Amino acid sequence: MRDNVGMELRVWAPDTIGEITHGTDLGELIVTHLPDLADGDIVCVTSKIVSKAEGQILTATDREDAITSETVRLVAKRTRPDGPPLRIVENHLGLVMAAAGVDASNTADGTILLLPRDPDASAVRMRAAVRKRCGVNVGVVISDTAGRPWRAGLTEIAIGCAGLTPLEDFRGASDTAGRELSVSVTAVADELVNAAELAKGKLGGRPLAVVRGRGDLVLPIGDDGAGARSLVRLGESDLFSMGTAEAIEYGRSLASPR
Amino acid sequence: MRDNVGMELRVWAPDTIGEITHGTDLGELIVTHLPDLADGDIVCVTSKIVSKAEGQILTATDREDAITSETVRLVAKRTRPDGPPLRIVENHLGLVMAAAGVDASNTADGTILLLPRDPDASAVRMRAAVRKRCGVNVGVVISDTAGRPWRAGLTEIAIGCAGLTPLEDFRGASDTAGRELSVSVTAVADELVNAAELAKGKLGGRPLAVVRGRGDLVLPIGDDGAGARSLVRLGESDLFSMGTAEAIEYGRSLASPR
Repeated sequence: MRDNVGMELRVWAPDTIGEITHGTDLGELIVTHLPDLADGDIVCVTSKIVSKAEGQILTATDREDAITSETVRLVAKRTRPDGPPLRIVENHLGLVMAAAGVDASNTADGTILLLPRDPDASAVRMRAAVRKRCGVNVGVVISDTAGRPWRAGLTEIAIGCAGLTPLEDFRGASDTAGRELSVSVTAVADELVNAAELAKGKLGGRPLAVVRGRGDLVLPIGDDGAGARSLVRLGESDLFSMGTAEAIEYGRSLASPR
Repeated sequence: MRDNVGMELRVWAPDTIGEITHGTDLGELIVTHLPDLADGDIVCVTSKIVSKAEGQILTATDREDAITSETVRLVAKRTRPDGPPLRIVENHLGLVMAAAGVDASNTADGTILLLPRDPDASAVRMRAAVRKRCGVNVGVVISDTAGRPWRAGLTEIAIGCAGLTPLEDFRGASDTAGRELSVSVTAVADELVNAAELAKGKLGGRPLAVVRGRGDLVLPIGDDGAGARSLVRLGESDLFSMGTAEAIEYGRSLASPR
């Protein structure tokens, strides 16, 4: 007997895609290592290779300076016995991340990697390149690894996307009992990059993956969609604009101005 | 030419598993609808059907009272023009969630659903039931839907698991350049439930899914692992123990005791 398969996805990640350096053509890389791409596939790309290909490399030996220059706003800070304080900051992409997303692993010694300058635009370019080379309509998502309040361990977040619905909106939709859904907007772009990460892994040198089976999330040619920018929630709706320690300190200062 | 497939996952979710009520045998349900389960598969189960099967249903018409009784600690609160304040709280499972995870969709009118009392134990029972009925060694994860600070849209979190490594620990491992990884612990249980959600969807009535291809995360028989409890990060390492507004207010009160 075979399973009752209502919905099925396939997720795969190619091995040994080779070294990425400044100027590597990522569109070429994708179609070379994923020759079977089809309409509706979603290509998931680790931000690190986008940064490398775009030359977002600093030879700065001072990672702390790099974090400072990537920071728009300090959200929380904690001292560490064995090094500089951990800073959780909002960066220029609106992402709240430890160390502003500045990375010092998997790069040549004495260099650090910044996030892509405009990951939504990077995704648009990769999507167009795949379309041009193979004539297929894919979605592209770029991911980075981040921590979360209240949860141990790191997961992936979508920091750039093109041709993809980043948020699936069920508002007004009804559940199987005809009642309006309480869960209303799903961050499918984030779900996709986490699915992809299970195939990429952290050690295997597999920075590309494909998710096949959710072609409903891929937009028509000519529509790159709202991008991963739309996944950023800051300002009024942000109940955690400061860390607790910072906010308590701020409250104290308000009450006793000197 | 076929793709270079370094690593591959298959994720599927069966349709029409029928109505779940208090007393439904979830082990039976799983093996009935997933007869092809094999060693190393990971079965992902939506918490809602676990709650229903375990009778975690209140006929309370007052959802706010239910949230209060599920609350261990208020983390943040915000008033809403069109109803009671939104409360983000830590519940008895250590999960920080809006409305404590209390759910009023997909349940009979006038009833609300609480989270399973001990989802790790629920997962242990399902794993044992699958083992007993089919002789296969699977991992089981129970997920619920939750929001996140700074990110729009909802994703899944693992709230219970058995026979599964919830956190993949790369500390001490080296990247392809021989440098120690900066990203050190991955919350694979959370990645898995997000992958599963892409096959389950929110509207399709598919609360079960299987992820095949990461058998390396499934523990040997006899070892149920640390459970999803190990994904909870509170206390000392929690930089966001209060919402910003609450912490500012607290800071004020410290500075001016009356």
